[in-house]
Amino acid sequence: MQTVRFLLIGLGNLGRRFCEVLREKNDLLLHRYGLDLRLVGAADSRGAAYEPALGLNLREVVRLKESGGTIADYPGVGERGWAAPELVAEAEADLLLEASPVNLEQGAEPAMTCVRTALQRGMDVVTPNKGPLVLAYQALHELAAEQGVALRFDGTVAGGLPALNIGQRDLRGAVVHRLEAVPNLCTGYVMDMLAEGLSWQEATERARTEGVLEGNGSWDLEGWDAAAKLVILTNAVLGYPARLEDVDRTGITGLDGGELQVARERGERYRLLARAEQDEDGAYALSVAPVPLAPEHPLGRLGRKQMGVVYATDIYGTITAIIDEPSPVPSAATMLRDVLDIYVEGR
Amino acid sequence: MQTVRFLLIGLGNLGRRFCEVLREKNDLLLHRYGLDLRLVGAADSRGAAYEPALGLNLREVVRLKESGGTIADYPGVGERGWAAPELVAEAEADLLLEASPVNLEQGAEPAMTCVRTALQRGMDVVTPNKGPLVLAYQALHELAAEQGVALRFDGTVAGGLPALNIGQRDLRGAVVHRLEAVPNLCTGYVMDMLAEGLSWQEATERARTEGVLEGNGSWDLEGWDAAAKLVILTNAVLGYPARLEDVDRTGITGLDGGELQVARERGERYRLLARAEQDEDGAYALSVAPVPLAPEHPLGRLGRKQMGVVYATDIYGTITAIIDEPSPVPSAATMLRDVLDIYVEGR
Repeated sequence: MQTVRFLLIGLGNLGRRFCEVLREKNDLLLHRYGLDLRLVGAADSRGAAYEPALGLNLREVVRLKESGGTIADYPGVGERGWAAPELVAEAEADLLLEASPVNLEQGAEPAMTCVRTALQRGMDVVTPNKGPLVLAYQALHELAAEQGVALRFDGTVAGGLPALNIGQRDLRGAVVHRLEAVPNLCTGYVMDMLAEGLSWQEATERARTEGVLEGNGSWDLEGWDAAAKLVILTNAVLGYPARLEDVDRTGITGLDGGELQVARERGERYRLLARAEQDEDGAYALSVAPVPLAPEHPLGRLGRKQMGVVYATDIYGTITAIIDEPSPVPSAATMLRDVLDIYVEGR
Repeated sequence: MQTVRFLLIGLGNLGRRFCEVLREKNDLLLHRYGLDLRLVGAADSRGAAYEPALGLNLREVVRLKESGGTIADYPGVGERGWAAPELVAEAEADLLLEASPVNLEQGAEPAMTCVRTALQRGMDVVTPNKGPLVLAYQALHELAAEQGVALRFDGTVAGGLPALNIGQRDLRGAVVHRLEAVPNLCTGYVMDMLAEGLSWQEATERARTEGVLEGNGSWDLEGWDAAAKLVILTNAVLGYPARLEDVDRTGITGLDGGELQVARERGERYRLLARAEQDEDGAYALSVAPVPLAPEHPLGRLGRKQMGVVYATDIYGTITAIIDEPSPVPSAATMLRDVLDIYVEGR
C-alpha cells in the first residue's frame, strides 16, 4: 500500500468536484491499485488548511465549498489569508494538484509559483490549469526533469478527453501532418444558438444562464482558450515549441448569424477549430478560427457537450478522439487519470 | 543508445510492412529515442534466417517477400524447413514480434508456442495476433509477469487504433458501463455493398477483389474476428475474464439486403457491432451482431476504411476513438507503437 499525501490548490468547479470523485473512488483505489490518496493541505482564494497527520476530511471540504464558504474555515486547522504559494512552500507532501482558474494576464500567478515551488521541492505536479504550461512549457518540463518528478496536465486540453495522452504516447514514431481540435464547449454553444436564429446578445445570455459562459467571456469568445490549448498540444504532441503569439487567432465575437444559419441549412456546423498544419519544411502553422464543418469532417457532428481532436499521421492513419461530457465531472476526473498515471504506471 | 535485437515471425501483410515502416523510421528512432532496432531473426511458413551479429537487412527481407519468395532464401543464413518455434527457442534476442496469421482452430499454433517460448526465455513480446491472447489471455499475462517482461498487443484490436491503450490507461479508476466497437472493416464493406443493392454473391466477390475479404471469409463474416477482438478488449480494459464462448455472436452471412437498403434510406448504416454491457451486478453481457446505426451514434458515420470504439464511463464521460486507415500500414505500425511503449516509456 502506497500513501500519497497531496495538496489541492483551487476549490472551485474542478477542485471541489475532484474531492467528490475521490470520495467516491477511495475504496476502488485502495483495492485495485493499493493507493491511499490523502489530502493533507488545501487552499482557495481566501485561505488554506493543513492537516499533515490525518489529512483533511473530503466530505467536510466539499461541504464548506458547497455552502459558499472557504477552506480557511476548516475546523481547527484552517487559516484566513494563508496564501496558496505559502502553503506549497511550507507543507510536507508528495504531490501538488493545482486547479485554480487560468489567469494569463498576471503571469498565471499564483499557479505559476505554486507549480514551480512544488517541483523545486521534489513534489510531483498534476494540473488542469493551462496558465503555467502556456507561459513556461519548456522551463517547467526542464525543472521537472532535473528534479526527477512528474509533471502531468492532461486536463488542460479538451476537458476529460485524453487528447494529450493519445498524442504523446500512441503516436510515437509518427509524423503528425495535421492536428485539428475543437477543444472549447462555450464557442460551439454560442454558435449553435446563432445558427438557430438568436441574436448575439440572446445567444451569449443563454450561454451564461446555462453556465457555459463565465465572466466577460472574452477568454472563450476571442479564442484565447482554444489558442492556449493549441499551444499546449503543439508543444506536447508535436514537440514544437510554439507560443501563444504564434497562433493566428480569430474569435467568434460579432460573427454573422445569417452566415451560420445558411451553413446549417447546408448541413454544416460551425465550430471554433484549432489547427496545426505542417508545411514542406516541417514547420507548423497554428490557427484558431470559426469554421463551418461538413458532416463528413471527423469533428463535423460534435454536439454541444462534445469536444474532439484529430491527428493525421504518416504511419498510424488518421485518429480521431471525441468526448461527450454531460457534466464537469470528466474535466475534474482528469486529475485522477494523471495521478494514477504517475503512481500506477510509474514515472 | 540502446540496441534491441528482435525476431520477427510472419512476413505477410503485417510483418513485411512492419519491415518497411522500420526502414523508413530507423533514423528517427535513433535520433529521437536513441533506439537501434535490429532484426536478427525472421521466419515465414517455409523457413527462417538468423544473423545475430549484423542483423538481417530489412531491404533484402522486403525484396524476398515482395517477389513471392521465402526468408529461407536469405543469402547465407536462410534455411528451408526451419520452423518459427525452433528459431524462437534457439535465437538470442531481446524481443519477439509475432505477426503470423490468426489461427484459432489449431490452438493458435505455431504462434502460441512462439509467444510462450519467448516469454519463458525472458524476451519481451509484441503481437498483433489475436490467437494466443484469445485462447490464453490470463496464462500469458501471468507468465509475462513472472518473467518480468512486457507483453503488448495493441494491434490485435481495430487495426491502428490505440483502442486498448486508451482503455487500459486513460480510463483508470473508472467503471466502464458500456463498451461498443466496430473493429472489423470487411463486414462493413460487405454490408455497404448490400445496402447499395448488390446481391450477397456480388458483394462478397467485390470484397475479395478489393482485398478486403480473404480465404473463405467465415472468420470475418461469421463474426469470429469481431468476437475475438471483443474478448481481448473485455479482458484488457474491463478486467473481465471473458472467453470466446461467452460472446453471443451473430454474423452477417445471409443478411437481407432489402432490410439494409431500407435502413440506408432512413439514414442509418449497418455495422457489425461488438458490445459489452454491464448489468446491475457488474457482470458484462457480450455480443456481436449486425446493427443499424443512426448518424447520431458515435460510430454511426464510419466509412469503409474506418473502425472505432466507444467507452461509456462513470467519471470520464463517453469517449469515442476512430481510425481512418486507408492502407494496411497503420495495422503494421501498431507493432512499432508497442515496441516504443516498452523501450521508451518503460515496462
